[in-house]
Amino acid sequence: MPIHTDRTYELQLEKLRASVLEMGGLVEDQIDRAIRSLIERDDDLARATVTRDHTVNRLDVEIDELCVTLLALHQPAGKDLRLVTTALKINADLERIGDLATNIAERAIELAPDVPVKPYIDLPRMAELAREMVQQSLDAFVREDADLALTVCNSDDTIDKLHDQLFRELLSFMVENPQTISRAMRLLFVSKALERIADHATNIAEMVIFMTKGRSIRHLDQLPRTL
Amino acid sequence: MPIHTDRTYELQLEKLRASVLEMGGLVEDQIDRAIRSLIERDDDLARATVTRDHTVNRLDVEIDELCVTLLALHQPAGKDLRLVTTALKINADLERIGDLATNIAERAIELAPDVPVKPYIDLPRMAELAREMVQQSLDAFVREDADLALTVCNSDDTIDKLHDQLFRELLSFMVENPQTISRAMRLLFVSKALERIADHATNIAEMVIFMTKGRSIRHLDQLPRTL
Repeated sequence: MPIHTDRTYELQLEKLRASVLEMGGLVEDQIDRAIRSLIERDDDLARATVTRDHTVNRLDVEIDELCVTLLALHQPAGKDLRLVTTALKINADLERIGDLATNIAERAIELAPDVPVKPYIDLPRMAELAREMVQQSLDAFVREDADLALTVCNSDDTIDKLHDQLFRELLSFMVENPQTISRAMRLLFVSKALERIADHATNIAEMVIFMTKGRSIRHLDQLPRTL
Repeated sequence: MPIHTDRTYELQLEKLRASVLEMGGLVEDQIDRAIRSLIERDDDLARATVTRDHTVNRLDVEIDELCVTLLALHQPAGKDLRLVTTALKINADLERIGDLATNIAERAIELAPDVPVKPYIDLPRMAELAREMVQQSLDAFVREDADLALTVCNSDDTIDKLHDQLFRELLSFMVENPQTISRAMRLLFVSKALERIADHATNIAEMVIFMTKGRSIRHLDQLPRTL
């Protein structure tokens, strides 16, 4: 018993897809700014990044509302229903990614006055990979492309390995020179935040696979080669 | 156009509430076991806790399915619609809490052979508080009790403070005695995991407030005193 016309319904679904992409673009940009503020020791940029999290939060509430409105007014079924419930969950992941970018910017503020423990090589690489995973997972959502989503799931391993490697490296810095401990710890938190961003992107990709294939690859010990 | 009778519908809603509570009970128990395995240096219990995450994951998939089925077959409106969309999101938080308990158990396995850096006093306290927050947030969900949910949000501050305090304490251990670094780091990860469990409980509580009051207290700089 849809009380709006089909045209309104289609427009609202389109708006939902566009809003999820907008949210995605925003948090990708937040990751980028946060890591740039760290590397360039630019605490103005870091502070601006923290403040900008409000925009992410506003969009988060809007998307939730849009999903509930769509469900209430149009009672979508089948594929559309999966799209809306998936958008609802993706939105939560994107909001957390925004929080994690904020956490990185907060560490950047703390680290800005100090000489870096080591040149920043791995962190920008991890950040770029994490950002790309977020982007691809959302492309996969909008295009309903399960294969692209599977690529994202496979990238998660690379970022986990980079994190483990950096962890061991920073640990040896700390052991050799205890004066580096508090700086190294902060870098470790940044690395952990990037690893978690990649986890959220992987969550999104898994949901896209479930949405398009009706098949859960979450919680498998090994990823399938094809879908 | 519900294709089942109202009675089936009511039963399915009831089943959804019960499943969310079951999932909640399970992850609370996982937190408890993980921290016990750490304190008692019981790596058998730690391994059993890691394995038991499969049960959490199975229930996670079941609850998602139940929500989508409810939406598809019964097209709930108003309060019921909010209940189902909230359950969908709560479920994701509970699953992550399960993952975090598993992470704690993994650290417990690594730490079991070593002499503890310090007596475990704060961590069990934090774990108990985090577990209680999870329990209360789900009680609030099932009873649709916004005041109880607000209590949960207020507790988050306590756990953040405990984490910060432990962080500083462990940092000074590391600086004074670099031999403790790798053990202290692992404890720090446990503390961080507990802090994140509390964040997830807070998320759940915020969603309950939104579900019952139609009012978002997420993203406010200060919590309201009453609702």
